[in-house]
Amino acid sequence: MPYEVFYWPGIQGRGEFVRLALEEAGVRYRDAALLPPGKGGGAPAVVAVLAARGERPPFAPPVLRAGRRLIAQTPNILLFLGERHGLAPANEPGKLWTHQLQLTILDLYTEIFDTHHPLSDGYAYEEQKPAARRRTRYFRAERLPKFLGYFERVLKLNSAHAPWLTGARRTYADLSLAQVIAGLHYAFPKASARELRRRPRLRALHDAVFARPRIARYVASGRRYAFNNEDLFRYYPELDR
Amino acid sequence: MPYEVFYWPGIQGRGEFVRLALEEAGVRYRDAALLPPGKGGGAPAVVAVLAARGERPPFAPPVLRAGRRLIAQTPNILLFLGERHGLAPANEPGKLWTHQLQLTILDLYTEIFDTHHPLSDGYAYEEQKPAARRRTRYFRAERLPKFLGYFERVLKLNSAHAPWLTGARRTYADLSLAQVIAGLHYAFPKASARELRRRPRLRALHDAVFARPRIARYVASGRRYAFNNEDLFRYYPELDR
Repeated sequence: MPYEVFYWPGIQGRGEFVRLALEEAGVRYRDAALLPPGKGGGAPAVVAVLAARGERPPFAPPVLRAGRRLIAQTPNILLFLGERHGLAPANEPGKLWTHQLQLTILDLYTEIFDTHHPLSDGYAYEEQKPAARRRTRYFRAERLPKFLGYFERVLKLNSAHAPWLTGARRTYADLSLAQVIAGLHYAFPKASARELRRRPRLRALHDAVFARPRIARYVASGRRYAFNNEDLFRYYPELDR
Repeated sequence: MPYEVFYWPGIQGRGEFVRLALEEAGVRYRDAALLPPGKGGGAPAVVAVLAARGERPPFAPPVLRAGRRLIAQTPNILLFLGERHGLAPANEPGKLWTHQLQLTILDLYTEIFDTHHPLSDGYAYEEQKPAARRRTRYFRAERLPKFLGYFERVLKLNSAHAPWLTGARRTYADLSLAQVIAGLHYAFPKASARELRRRPRLRALHDAVFARPRIARYVASGRRYAFNNEDLFRYYPELDR
């Protein structure tokens, strides 16, 4: 097995961006989250990999084990996989542009998490509800339209190669953006429906990614965690309008 | 002039990570923040570059113009400059490891900003003081020691090549981490003194970076903005303990 993914069990989280890339690439990997602790999986496996003695320790999951290397930081893992498995352009400008898009997608992802945990995950949601309401109000009014408007514009610029963000082939950034759109549907059904109504290219990207044979097989396999309110995308009706 | 940096005038912000890399590399660049609007500088220059018609539009500053290319996202710009100007290892594992460190440094940077603006920059600090106090309490108690402990550990693993984070030469990640330590001294003089007392390697890294001849010249040139409370590092005595 060439790869092993370490991420907290029970949620998609940032690990899911890595999983979608591995699935689309069609490479085999061991997913520690799906194994019991007795078989080297579960949360203890994540804790162990973070404490591993090695020259290049990860700070936080997700972590990808590739042979003897441990690679961390979601965009960094995707940069690595993109190059190895044809999930990004081979030329340097295309590679950096794909990475730039990915970093912006993950900025949006972080801001989505911040809507329900503006005071950090050091406090439960129930301990920070008024703060979450205020942060989310600004997110819905300003940030979400700004991010989605940007990505719709990028898709339009590449419309000769619809539905992809860049170039003629899907990249890991396409997979990640589709994942964020799926998460937005779960977390903000009203706000995201309103925002996506006038952004047909984002809807088409989402549908095209989840119709990819390998991605569709993965979603149907039962290996993909369902969205749930322990995850980074959370549905709190009081935050959605 | 091969490069031009676009970032908001008056603050260091994320632009400073790019500037420090360019300064250390000894390459010439035009800094739009230091030019008046009439000469293609100031905030209007940033607004213009964000609205530029092009195939690969940036989402937010900093933006680096390199010939006809516009490159955005701080870690992406540093990846580009690191490769071009010997600010990162040339081998692929070393390059990705340096990038991984940089992404973690910028995660810390974002969390520092979040201490005083947990509800986002859509609200003034004065409108979110109780939230800032709660977020900062957790940051000081848990997050700051965790990040600094991690980087101290990484420095120790590379102690054969002290004071650098990786390999025998300084990388852009060293420059960025020294910048974050400088910012912590400004924003959290008490908390950072306490945390750095038992982390000699971080102190040595900071001192070594700011003693580099080109960095020292830059700091003395008057071109580097002073830390100030419009910036992402801010000093609010009520948040420091």
